[in-house]
Amino acid sequence: MINELNKIMEQAQEAYESYQFVSGKAKKEFLYCIADQIEEIGDELIHTASEETNLPIARFNGERARTCAQLKAFGDLVAEGTWVEAVIDTALADRKPFPKPDMRKMSVALGPVLVFGASNFPLAYSTAGGDTASALAAGCPVVIKGHPSHPKTSALVADAVKKALTQCGLHPFIFQHIEGSSFELGRILTQHPVTAGVGFTGSLIGGRAIYDYAQNREVPIPVFAEMGSTNPVILLKDALIHKAAEMAKAFAASITIGVGQFCTNPGIMLGIKSSSLNHFTSLLAIELSMVPAYKMLHDGIYNNYTTALDKVLFDKGVETIYHAHAEDPLTASPVLARVSADTFLLNPELQHEVFGPFSLIIVCENRIQMINVWKKLKGQLTTTIMGTENDLEINKDLVDIARNIAGRIVFNAVPTGVEVGNATVHGGPYPSSTDGRFTSVGMDAIKRWVRPICFQDCPDSLLPDELKDFNSLNIFRKINGEYSRDNV
Amino acid sequence: MINELNKIMEQAQEAYESYQFVSGKAKKEFLYCIADQIEEIGDELIHTASEETNLPIARFNGERARTCAQLKAFGDLVAEGTWVEAVIDTALADRKPFPKPDMRKMSVALGPVLVFGASNFPLAYSTAGGDTASALAAGCPVVIKGHPSHPKTSALVADAVKKALTQCGLHPFIFQHIEGSSFELGRILTQHPVTAGVGFTGSLIGGRAIYDYAQNREVPIPVFAEMGSTNPVILLKDALIHKAAEMAKAFAASITIGVGQFCTNPGIMLGIKSSSLNHFTSLLAIELSMVPAYKMLHDGIYNNYTTALDKVLFDKGVETIYHAHAEDPLTASPVLARVSADTFLLNPELQHEVFGPFSLIIVCENRIQMINVWKKLKGQLTTTIMGTENDLEINKDLVDIARNIAGRIVFNAVPTGVEVGNATVHGGPYPSSTDGRFTSVGMDAIKRWVRPICFQDCPDSLLPDELKDFNSLNIFRKINGEYSRDNV
Repeated sequence: MINELNKIMEQAQEAYESYQFVSGKAKKEFLYCIADQIEEIGDELIHTASEETNLPIARFNGERARTCAQLKAFGDLVAEGTWVEAVIDTALADRKPFPKPDMRKMSVALGPVLVFGASNFPLAYSTAGGDTASALAAGCPVVIKGHPSHPKTSALVADAVKKALTQCGLHPFIFQHIEGSSFELGRILTQHPVTAGVGFTGSLIGGRAIYDYAQNREVPIPVFAEMGSTNPVILLKDALIHKAAEMAKAFAASITIGVGQFCTNPGIMLGIKSSSLNHFTSLLAIELSMVPAYKMLHDGIYNNYTTALDKVLFDKGVETIYHAHAEDPLTASPVLARVSADTFLLNPELQHEVFGPFSLIIVCENRIQMINVWKKLKGQLTTTIMGTENDLEINKDLVDIARNIAGRIVFNAVPTGVEVGNATVHGGPYPSSTDGRFTSVGMDAIKRWVRPICFQDCPDSLLPDELKDFNSLNIFRKINGEYSRDNV
Repeated sequence: MINELNKIMEQAQEAYESYQFVSGKAKKEFLYCIADQIEEIGDELIHTASEETNLPIARFNGERARTCAQLKAFGDLVAEGTWVEAVIDTALADRKPFPKPDMRKMSVALGPVLVFGASNFPLAYSTAGGDTASALAAGCPVVIKGHPSHPKTSALVADAVKKALTQCGLHPFIFQHIEGSSFELGRILTQHPVTAGVGFTGSLIGGRAIYDYAQNREVPIPVFAEMGSTNPVILLKDALIHKAAEMAKAFAASITIGVGQFCTNPGIMLGIKSSSLNHFTSLLAIELSMVPAYKMLHDGIYNNYTTALDKVLFDKGVETIYHAHAEDPLTASPVLARVSADTFLLNPELQHEVFGPFSLIIVCENRIQMINVWKKLKGQLTTTIMGTENDLEINKDLVDIARNIAGRIVFNAVPTGVEVGNATVHGGPYPSSTDGRFTSVGMDAIKRWVRPICFQDCPDSLLPDELKDFNSLNIFRKINGEYSRDNV
């Protein structure tokens, strides 16, 4: 195995030597071509994914559209070109005591990137998903370890990417697909000397293991592991009084979307003890009871769900509000539970993510206790604040605290359904991800795969186009501190 | 000791809770005030630093000016405000199939930062040096472990910062100074739960130890260790023929500046076997012979220098070109040696940094061998290419390779004397630093101490000023993909 993996990584390095210099326009063509090739597979892809994951056909129509849209969005980003963050400080020959040199910098591709796809988004965050799309856009070859829970889907998508490589006349090893499920395989690939960065989506245990492998190398490399989150929601007083029915509907949908197998699933909800909180809880239970039980992705996730659930529900002080037992194998019905903030604060285990259609309502005695719980929360991908204008006005401090907890703060909407945009942050303080300084969703995901280089007093003809005096790419550049599309 | 350190870190966390929200203008006032307080110390600072480090008075006049200029430059940066990288994507309520939310993001302070100052820049990269200035500018409280080789200098500067805190009415624990030299102290501080990031300048062994401590935490944190480099220089054919004298003068000065105790010291120079390379080597030896021997910073550095030097000079195949033995204790005279590329390629130990006034000329058989050596070099802070227009035209491939080796590529100038600007990259692939994706010098050094947060559908009144519709700070923002100083 080792010889074969060495060969794969050396091929990735060989591809990097040319791919890092491929123009943004050519990369756009390639990324669009991947999207076209994925569409080309047609119904076979949708059916295969659905069979392998127990998720419905309709879901995969949506997820395929998102996957292709992401590939194209990264194509557009690199064709436009501003993403390299070109910065130019021009020379001042007569500055005292020393002349000021001409200094120009931009972001360049890091090297071969290793991607561990997600099981819960078999298209959008797997083989040609967000990590792969952003790394290819940055100019990094990708080696993907296909997720063992959807091998046929992964192989179909990998074929599509390879066809796109051929069609665009690019180096054949810019993208390589590896099948296999052993931890050892992950370790060898992560620790291979040419691997320059790793993208991972999955469990805390898996992500942390990969992270540790990477940090124990002679040359440590960045690992962007997105590992999950309980995405706490604060339910403020007036919102509970005036919008209980609407919120119950929205959160029931958010808790159960994809059988709860979303990393932004709202797994914890905080409110202050009141009849309106009780009323909301009842409404949410009713809404959840109307959602049918569906099969989860695979044995492993189902077993983890039931084990984690048992642990929480049998915990002293946790009250089950709604729990319809499903009889069919792998099938998970939604579950709602409740606990006092006193108990929650005493038991850090209740902060652990229960990956599935579950949420835990935390009943606080008063605002002070709610703030106390809010401050004690571990790192999160998202936090959500549900409140009327009046609620928010008198709870500004909760927003300030939220900044220290999460990567994204949502107001009056559910956390599931992450927008892929310029301002997206999908990443947060540990343990939600290994590096809360970066995002795995949205355009800035490309920043994970680059490093800056600076050219000092470089002749114009040797500079990359992005840094030449004449701005032929018409990109935004920071020239002597000011952003413009000007020439130097 | 542990109780005291716990108290210090808890105080830093307490300071963070308010300091992260302090305005850019107030931070500018604070940073300028630190500079003023440092100037206030007057000659005492210069004399103390000179006595503690064996470096001349003149050097400290320059270094103090640089230290104060850096503090002010970061003050200007945060008062101007664009550095937070505000990105705004506005909502599209009627987008299909789902409405597009309003998403806004910016960089916020990471938390308390631990700084290990450098011994070789007792002002500019120590107590109130680049790491401290950039962390304070970002909104992070700083805990500095003063360098044990200049304790009095460090204490004087720490007092200046504390006076500035009082004068500006800021939280007293935004800056705290710890004295001590044990490894254990560094470990405890790095692994304290509230420490959010670490800046370090020093040796590979020290930097790597801190890095490993940080990665073995329950919550890993970023470590920016700048650990040194051999800063290889390529001497191209026509440059050797036409500019030998000028180059010999410039590189003799660069090799010996600060008694060679600069991290950008040109420790390796490559050329193709020729009479002009021999001529340059002789001229460089003559120039070096005219530089007097000076005392190094302290015992440890001097001992490391002589040990490393002996190792290289007694290596089979290494020829000593110039080596005047200095008799006085701690005194290091410049040394020049030469080795064939064949020998160099066989002996990876010759790539190790010799920290002091030393350089090794590598004689390549031909261009192919020079490229081979160039490609085999470990990660570097800088590489330098010396060549005429014609040289550079026919050696474009060397520039492409240089991009993969170093953070900064210098053309026809010495690598020492790093400009503090917007485009500066002082950081490079491991082992020159632990994270080549960031810089420790220049304005972007502030990016080491932040993470992004995203506000989704947040009412305007709750947004930070940087993200509000009305651009009261008049900063550049990326609004729906375009940079401007516009309102939304």
